[in-house]
Amino acid sequence: MKRKICVVVTARPSYSRIKTALEAIRDNPELELQLVVAASALLDRYGNATKTIENDGFKIAAKVFNVLEGENLTAAAKTTGIGILELSTVFDNLNPDIVVTVADRFETMATAISAAYMNIPLAHIQGGEVTGNIDEKVRHSITKLADYHFVASNDAYERVLKLGEASEFVFNTGCPSIDLASRVLNEPSLDFDPIQKYGGVGGHPDYSKGYWVVMQHPVTTEVTYSRSHIEETLHAMHATGDPVFWFWPNVDAGADGTSTGIRAFRENNSLENFHFFKNMDPTDFLKLLVNSKGLVGNSSVGIRECAFLGVPVINIGSRQNKRERGHNVHDVGYDRNDILTTIQKIKSSPRPQSSNVYGGGDAGLQIARYLTEVPLIFHKTITF
Amino acid sequence: MKRKICVVVTARPSYSRIKTALEAIRDNPELELQLVVAASALLDRYGNATKTIENDGFKIAAKVFNVLEGENLTAAAKTTGIGILELSTVFDNLNPDIVVTVADRFETMATAISAAYMNIPLAHIQGGEVTGNIDEKVRHSITKLADYHFVASNDAYERVLKLGEASEFVFNTGCPSIDLASRVLNEPSLDFDPIQKYGGVGGHPDYSKGYWVVMQHPVTTEVTYSRSHIEETLHAMHATGDPVFWFWPNVDAGADGTSTGIRAFRENNSLENFHFFKNMDPTDFLKLLVNSKGLVGNSSVGIRECAFLGVPVINIGSRQNKRERGHNVHDVGYDRNDILTTIQKIKSSPRPQSSNVYGGGDAGLQIARYLTEVPLIFHKTITF
Amino acid sequence: MKRKICVVVTARPSYSRIKTALEAIRDNPELELQLVVAASALLDRYGNATKTIENDGFKIAAKVFNVLEGENLTAAAKTTGIGILELSTVFDNLNPDIVVTVADRFETMATAISAAYMNIPLAHIQGGEVTGNIDEKVRHSITKLADYHFVASNDAYERVLKLGEASEFVFNTGCPSIDLASRVLNEPSLDFDPIQKYGGVGGHPDYSKGYWVVMQHPVTTEVTYSRSHIEETLHAMHATGDPVFWFWPNVDAGADGTSTGIRAFRENNSLENFHFFKNMDPTDFLKLLVNSKGLVGNSSVGIRECAFLGVPVINIGSRQNKRERGHNVHDVGYDRNDILTTIQKIKSSPRPQSSNVYGGGDAGLQIARYLTEVPLIFHKTITF
Amino acid sequence: MKRKICVVVTARPSYSRIKTALEAIRDNPELELQLVVAASALLDRYGNATKTIENDGFKIAAKVFNVLEGENLTAAAKTTGIGILELSTVFDNLNPDIVVTVADRFETMATAISAAYMNIPLAHIQGGEVTGNIDEKVRHSITKLADYHFVASNDAYERVLKLGEASEFVFNTGCPSIDLASRVLNEPSLDFDPIQKYGGVGGHPDYSKGYWVVMQHPVTTEVTYSRSHIEETLHAMHATGDPVFWFWPNVDAGADGTSTGIRAFRENNSLENFHFFKNMDPTDFLKLLVNSKGLVGNSSVGIRECAFLGVPVINIGSRQNKRERGHNVHDVGYDRNDILTTIQKIKSSPRPQSSNVYGGGDAGLQIARYLTEVPLIFHKTITF
Repeated sequence: MKRKICVVVTARPSYSRIKTALEAIRDNPELELQLVVAASALLDRYGNATKTIENDGFKIAAKVFNVLEGENLTAAAKTTGIGILELSTVFDNLNPDIVVTVADRFETMATAISAAYMNIPLAHIQGGEVTGNIDEKVRHSITKLADYHFVASNDAYERVLKLGEASEFVFNTGCPSIDLASRVLNEPSLDFDPIQKYGGVGGHPDYSKGYWVVMQHPVTTEVTYSRSHIEETLHAMHATGDPVFWFWPNVDAGADGTSTGIRAFRENNSLENFHFFKNMDPTDFLKLLVNSKGLVGNSSVGIRECAFLGVPVINIGSRQNKRERGHNVHDVGYDRNDILTTIQKIKSSPRPQSSNVYGGGDAGLQIARYLTEVPLIFHKTITF
Repeated sequence: MKRKICVVVTARPSYSRIKTALEAIRDNPELELQLVVAASALLDRYGNATKTIENDGFKIAAKVFNVLEGENLTAAAKTTGIGILELSTVFDNLNPDIVVTVADRFETMATAISAAYMNIPLAHIQGGEVTGNIDEKVRHSITKLADYHFVASNDAYERVLKLGEASEFVFNTGCPSIDLASRVLNEPSLDFDPIQKYGGVGGHPDYSKGYWVVMQHPVTTEVTYSRSHIEETLHAMHATGDPVFWFWPNVDAGADGTSTGIRAFRENNSLENFHFFKNMDPTDFLKLLVNSKGLVGNSSVGIRECAFLGVPVINIGSRQNKRERGHNVHDVGYDRNDILTTIQKIKSSPRPQSSNVYGGGDAGLQIARYLTEVPLIFHKTITF
Repeated sequence: MKRKICVVVTARPSYSRIKTALEAIRDNPELELQLVVAASALLDRYGNATKTIENDGFKIAAKVFNVLEGENLTAAAKTTGIGILELSTVFDNLNPDIVVTVADRFETMATAISAAYMNIPLAHIQGGEVTGNIDEKVRHSITKLADYHFVASNDAYERVLKLGEASEFVFNTGCPSIDLASRVLNEPSLDFDPIQKYGGVGGHPDYSKGYWVVMQHPVTTEVTYSRSHIEETLHAMHATGDPVFWFWPNVDAGADGTSTGIRAFRENNSLENFHFFKNMDPTDFLKLLVNSKGLVGNSSVGIRECAFLGVPVINIGSRQNKRERGHNVHDVGYDRNDILTTIQKIKSSPRPQSSNVYGGGDAGLQIARYLTEVPLIFHKTITF
Repeated sequence: MKRKICVVVTARPSYSRIKTALEAIRDNPELELQLVVAASALLDRYGNATKTIENDGFKIAAKVFNVLEGENLTAAAKTTGIGILELSTVFDNLNPDIVVTVADRFETMATAISAAYMNIPLAHIQGGEVTGNIDEKVRHSITKLADYHFVASNDAYERVLKLGEASEFVFNTGCPSIDLASRVLNEPSLDFDPIQKYGGVGGHPDYSKGYWVVMQHPVTTEVTYSRSHIEETLHAMHATGDPVFWFWPNVDAGADGTSTGIRAFRENNSLENFHFFKNMDPTDFLKLLVNSKGLVGNSSVGIRECAFLGVPVINIGSRQNKRERGHNVHDVGYDRNDILTTIQKIKSSPRPQSSNVYGGGDAGLQIARYLTEVPLIFHKTITF
């Protein structure tokens, strides 16, 4: 009998990151994939991932709407509470052998608690990393609830062991997002017109001479500054005069500050060189990055995929603090001048070299294989 | 301005355990106690603690009903989800400077998540211990969400440090339950008639020549066996012929098996030597223990307070696995013969010596003092 | 394609009442029954109906745990809120063509709201009656949410029309509980030993010379009196010296007062003539009634089935106020003397005649047939 | 002691409608106003009413975030369930003597159920009207839960009586929105520049020669058509060439279709004559209407306030079906040609006369006075 593997995806970026693991699980003859799509991954204003997921050939086993509107910290807590109420019903219905939770967004805790409390073996992808904000608490807290750990780097591997997890259940598979980056590097040309294919709003700049990609999320611990933070980036990118492809932020406490800042800036400035996207197929997004002058913002894509792809990154602020970096990252503060200076530096430097600090391109296959092999357990004891 | 310290108590035993810390917080001129009573601590069938708490001179700032009936694992998950929905509102209303969560019952996770997600500094009492079941996951997971740690023993102190917490925020105060035991040791005589004072049901045995106390909870990971487990103990205690004061179990997945087993046994056996209690004032309970032949079951009181009090304990099954022990504990399986043999052994041995492995009697005062001193933080980074 | 009919049962008595409708739906070739069991119908301490339901040959499509412990009025509201959260997911999964809700318990509102808000046609069984407490508000409120109405009496039929419902969607089918009573009247002998078959606790009286049945529920609007109310009945029945078969109350705000009163009375009195049951197969229960001296309490069974069966009823208090009555009902207050006097009166009077005020025995078949015929609508406009 | 009157406002338009009642309650020496703001009234993207409410001099006693994102029918049900969970806590904390719920939006049911189930006397403003969609079910269902009824017209008064409510608790006060309209008619000049004062997005048309106001909400029972419906209106208003002040829709299942339709139309058309507003102070909004050529859409403001103000209204589609009308309303279908034709007709006709079908301007004062006088009851029995 096939093992039923229930993977819960709560945001579009998480989906992109583990897509190859989902494929490997779906295609493994010993496994049955139960894909649950939840939270902002279902919502239009954060780039509803449903259609993308179905176009990629996945069947959605259950949809869980649990985002409580409000975009304040109380709503984040309540969204997690509702998530537990809903996911425990889903797990009751699907009766999985293993539940898989991804990374460290606050609502992934709902997946972890529901599975752990229902005595369902829990696997965690991307534990052991360090960032230093609420994600940090969530990530390590989930490590202590999880039975199996699929980590993305050597540092992360060592850290999960130090947290008292048994070495037989910690696996450094690399990050599945690198699998996708690896495929893209084989055919890296920009073979589509982003605006034509993805719509969005804004100007139609001539990007044939190069362009920047911007993706900047609010930082949950700096909610009150989210608007002023985004404005620094807006001013800097406006000042370059270069074409800019800008992606809307994901749903987090503070997104309203970020979104409002962007909308207000649009109303008050002529932004003919800016085009705004809600979301993009992950493969297309990686192609867009490979062919760009660089990525600006605070997305983990800059730290992870861009390391492998050799794309220059201007990493703004504290969100990716302490994550391991390849050779491609320039760290700056929330300061339009710093951003502009770094843009000039990147323009006058050679392209950075590829680094496989986050894996070699077979993470998805490794994860699927381990999921067929691990014993089904849900008790554990700290190793020290 | 006084620091507002919000302590969430979710079960009668937790209240007893930290009562002296509550007193010390209430009486500290720099602190304001906000006591929230939640979950089974409010329910009659698990020994509603409300009246006891108010008789002890505490004001209840909010009551949170969040126990979803069902006593299965799904209901435990949902109880936690509802707890988050409710507690986040309570924290919004009370606006505490620090939230305190106690120990490792599954629903304490609701307290921890609500506080952490709302950027309220979180203190955890009794982290760092080892038990090996779902409590184990909950306890260490909360450690990773908490900003301050008040631990009860040296081993626990070392373990929290190893988990990557900064040493400046880990304090080995000992367990507040020992404070209470310390007071009782000053006046140890049984100065009340338990049946007359606390009612309950069952026979009225002559306990002047000694008696046993039984307190056995279901183990969440062994739900299906909870009835047969309790029956072994019932048979053993019935066979002794000694007077037995038996306490009903707390609310957990599996409590119905335990409760049903006790009820059925009562119907089918003449249990004139048994008297059943729902709950007891903590001080009276400790006096009852000091004057007993010993404690039988799997309560942590046997490991903790009884070590300090020098009361012999027959610790049944896996629930207290790996907790540090004084000289007073005899570990046995779910087996009526083992239990009976150990009872004989205890009767023929000298009383065990007192041990302060869980503290020296000033835990409450230490906790209150540290709560006045720690900086108010809610961000942290793992130390390795 | 078969019409999917989703019936939500939230309490053991509701199940008994509509069992024949469930059978008729299940057996109708044009219908597919989706039976959802929820709330107290799932809980052991209120007579878990699951096993009975499955023994009767029904498949349970979904179980919904939504009872929030507390047994106060706030918990009743929250139980309804949780019910909506859970049932809306169930309806999403089952995708029924029609949802059926039964009678007027507070939590049935969750069924009605979920269906109405999700644009699923809603049928209501037993609307249009009058009682005068919170059930009254719930019942008529559900009538205004429902699209089809299966009522149990002529008065109810007229009342639903007066409430502005279109006559083409109001059907006086009689009450399905009478169908069962009708079957029992064909073979009325007490062909089982209640204590042997159903266990329970208490004495083993010789009931061959006759016995009384007691079923008394707390009244939500008189919560604070529930204990003193039940004590009047306990004293009266104790004074008769006759054998008494007593059924535990269902879950409602106030059940704790009722249950506590019964438990305390048992502890303090020698009740050898009392035997206590949690629940009974509906058919067996009707046989028990037919062969009894009479029914005492405030159950609607006394008003409804006992009218058809010709069983004398002592109806206590306000709970059944204003429900139509046959010739069998004696109304009394919460007063032990009134109850005792009426018992004597019944003993010295001839057996009352049967009345079909609540239907003629084919309600279930009628309901199923109408469910195949009604147009699937979920919009309506008041008729005046 | 003052009676505590808890009014729950769940949407910006509801606030505007009952503002004068809130003032009268606040200013009545025998009453204490407890204003609860909930649901979309708190959310930026539906015109957060918080600031307006506070600027109007009200203190907010509690905020309730209960909108579950998704904007599908399941989310509407769940939003109501969460509303019950939250509001029951609020009522526990505020302990009101009377709860007031307004009109018929789906989430107002949460207010009604929480109050009714907690035995708190419930007043309903604006019952008894007829519309014929989900609001219709909600409105009459709340009437059956409510103890006091403040209705806005003669027809509504008669209808509530026919629904079986006792005449002593039904009061035809007229609609509080007319109170505001009455004040505006005293000083009707447009003494502010809408764009300067309220921002918003879009063109800056010269509106000195007249303009249209558009407010069109999605209809919950026609969710799948919400985009095509809004497009008809967009095309028609675009074709007039007249200045248009357009208000974003409120939150309902289907709002995404409406909002998406508007956004897409803006991207694809040059709409220099359109300006879009999120919200406006109620008084300013009424002034805007008085000075406009007319109101287009399906807002109840067109039926109610505009009748009193004598403003021509093009009422589109089914949303206001069966509401009583003054002389000012032209009903049309979702058809750009019908809309355009009617616009021409209005331009060539004299201004309609004022009608007081919805009250004479003292509704708020009447409501406050009745709230001081009614007996505090929460039981009722249908009158037939």
